[in-house]
Amino acid sequence: MVRDHGGNLQAAQAEYGGEGWIDLSTGINRRAYPVPLLAPEVWTALPTAGALADLTQAAALAYGAATGRILPLAGAQAAIQLYPRLRAPGVARIIAPTYNEHAASLAAQGWAVEPVEGLRGLAGADLAVVVNPNNPDGRDWAPEALEGLARKVGLLVVDESFADPQPGLSVAGRGVDNILVLRSFGKFYGLAGVRLGFLLGAPALLERAAEMAGPWAVSGPALAIGAQALRDTLWQALTVERLQADAARLDRMAERAGWALVGGCALFRTYATPDAGRAQDHLARHAIWSRRFPYSGHWLRLGLPDGAEWGRLDLALSAWRPA
Amino acid sequence: MVRDHGGNLQAAQAEYGGEGWIDLSTGINRRAYPVPLLAPEVWTALPTAGALADLTQAAALAYGAATGRILPLAGAQAAIQLYPRLRAPGVARIIAPTYNEHAASLAAQGWAVEPVEGLRGLAGADLAVVVNPNNPDGRDWAPEALEGLARKVGLLVVDESFADPQPGLSVAGRGVDNILVLRSFGKFYGLAGVRLGFLLGAPALLERAAEMAGPWAVSGPALAIGAQALRDTLWQALTVERLQADAARLDRMAERAGWALVGGCALFRTYATPDAGRAQDHLARHAIWSRRFPYSGHWLRLGLPDGAEWGRLDLALSAWRPA
Repeated sequence: MVRDHGGNLQAAQAEYGGEGWIDLSTGINRRAYPVPLLAPEVWTALPTAGALADLTQAAALAYGAATGRILPLAGAQAAIQLYPRLRAPGVARIIAPTYNEHAASLAAQGWAVEPVEGLRGLAGADLAVVVNPNNPDGRDWAPEALEGLARKVGLLVVDESFADPQPGLSVAGRGVDNILVLRSFGKFYGLAGVRLGFLLGAPALLERAAEMAGPWAVSGPALAIGAQALRDTLWQALTVERLQADAARLDRMAERAGWALVGGCALFRTYATPDAGRAQDHLARHAIWSRRFPYSGHWLRLGLPDGAEWGRLDLALSAWRPA
Repeated sequence: MVRDHGGNLQAAQAEYGGEGWIDLSTGINRRAYPVPLLAPEVWTALPTAGALADLTQAAALAYGAATGRILPLAGAQAAIQLYPRLRAPGVARIIAPTYNEHAASLAAQGWAVEPVEGLRGLAGADLAVVVNPNNPDGRDWAPEALEGLARKVGLLVVDESFADPQPGLSVAGRGVDNILVLRSFGKFYGLAGVRLGFLLGAPALLERAAEMAGPWAVSGPALAIGAQALRDTLWQALTVERLQADAARLDRMAERAGWALVGGCALFRTYATPDAGRAQDHLARHAIWSRRFPYSGHWLRLGLPDGAEWGRLDLALSAWRPA
C-alpha cells in the first residue's frame, strides 16, 4: 500500500513539466546542516559499537535524555514501523488529523485505530499517539499534560519529529516509563536522505526494539553526521532563529494572498485557502510544489523557502486570484 | 542480546593495544568500490521513488532477476530481521554451522530452529535456510539441488551474501515462488557502512516485506552508490579476478604456517589451526584481527588482506609456532 506523502516532487514534475522546481511539500529544513568530510571507514566498515555509542551520547545532549534511554534507528519512520510491535495489539487512539503513517503502521500490526480530537479522547487507550507539535496543524501540548495523560493509557507514543525548535515541548528527558518518544534527525537538520531517527523510552522497551531492528540498523554516514550535528549547538541556535523568522515571513506573504494561517511550527505552515486544489495547481504552474491533505478541501501546507526561492514564491502568491 | 560477530575490532584494540590494526575478522572486501561524488539531494531530500526504481533496475542487471522480484533494504541483515515474519512460525531448519543471525532472528520471532547437516536434513521444514556459499566453511550447493529442495519445504531462504564472485550458484533469477534470496551489497563492494541489501522473491511476499520495512527504508547515499556500483561490470570482473587470486595466495601463506584449508570463498578463508585461541592471539599480537567461532576449537577465519597488509600477515604467519 502506497500512502499519500509529501516529497512526491517527481510526480508533480511529470504532471506539470518545467525545470527548477522548489519543493515546499515537506517539512524538511531546506538549509541543511553541512555534511562533514567523512572518514573512509564510515563507508567501508560495519558500523562500530563505538560510533553508535558516540551518536547516542550526542543525542543525549541534544534531547536532554539519558543515553540508556535512547535507541538510534534509521529514521523516525523506522521507529513508527517498530513501536506497534512492542505491545500486543489492542485499541490505539490518535489525535487526528496527523501524520498518516502512525495509523497505517498500527493497523498493519493488528491494532484497532481510533482517531480522536484531543488529549481527553485518548484516555483509556491501550496505546495513544500524539504528534507534538502536530503535523500539519501545529497544535501542541504541554509536557505536564502529556505526563498526566500517560497515567491514563497503556503506552503513550509522542512523536516529536518537529520539536527541535521548541525544546520546551519535549517529554524526552522526563523518564516516564510508559512514554515512548520519537525524534527525527532529517527534518530539522535538513538531511532526510541520511535516514536517522531515535526512539526514547524505558530501557526494557528499547532493548526489545533494538532486537527487532537488529545489528547495524544505522549506517556509518548517519552515525558520523548525526554525532557531529547533534552536538553543534551554535548551528542549532542560529537555525532555530532563522526558521522562526522565516515562518513569520511566510505567514505575512500568505496573508497578503488571503490565505489564513491554520497553524504550523518553525518547519512548516498550513494555510486555509479558498480551494486547496486550485491553490496547489496555481503554485505548481510556478514550479513550486506544496502539500494537500485528503481530508481537507482548503488546507495547503508549505515548507519554508530559502534564499532566492522567497522571490519566486512571492511572485507566485502575488499572482494568486481567489475564485 | 548481543551476538558474536566479526567486525568487533574495537574490542580487540582495547584488549591488545597497539596501532594500525588490520581487520581480517570479516568477509568484507577490503578494496572497496570507490564512493562516487554524491549530489546534495542524496543527503537532503527524502529518497525518491525514481532513485529506488533506478537502484532496483541496477540490481536486476547484477543479479539476473526481474525488477518486480527485487526489494532493496538497508542491508542483508535487514532482510534477516524481516523474513521470519513472512510466515506463521513453525519449524525452521538451517544447515549449520553458519551465520548465527538467521537462527537468532527466527527464534526471536517464535520459530523452532533446528540445525541440520546438509540439504537432505532440511526437507519437511516449514522454512529452510541455506547460506550459499556457506559462511564460514564455504560449502556450496547447486541451484538445481536448491530448486529440488524448494519442493520439499514451505519456504526456502537462500542467503547469497557471499555469492557475487560465483554467479553460477545463484537462484536469484530462477523465479521460484517459494524461494527467497538474500543479497548483500556491502560485502563484495566493500561498503558495509552504507547498509544496503536485497530480498528477492515472489512479488506477493515482497509486497508484504515492503510494508513491514516501511517507506524510505534505504538511504539516499545507498540508493545512489548501489545504482552505480551494481552496473559497473568492469569493476566487478576485475574484483572477482583479484579476489580469486588473493584467496589462493592466502591459502598458500596459511599452508606454510601449517594451517589447513577448511573451506571458504573468494571473500574469506577458514583454516584449521592447532588451537584457534592461540592462533587468534598470535595474530592479534601482530595487530591483525581474525575471527573465531564458539563451536570450534580449531577454525580461524581470515578475510583477504590488501596491499601492504600482505607483508604484515606473512611476517606474522612466519612467526607462528605450533604448540
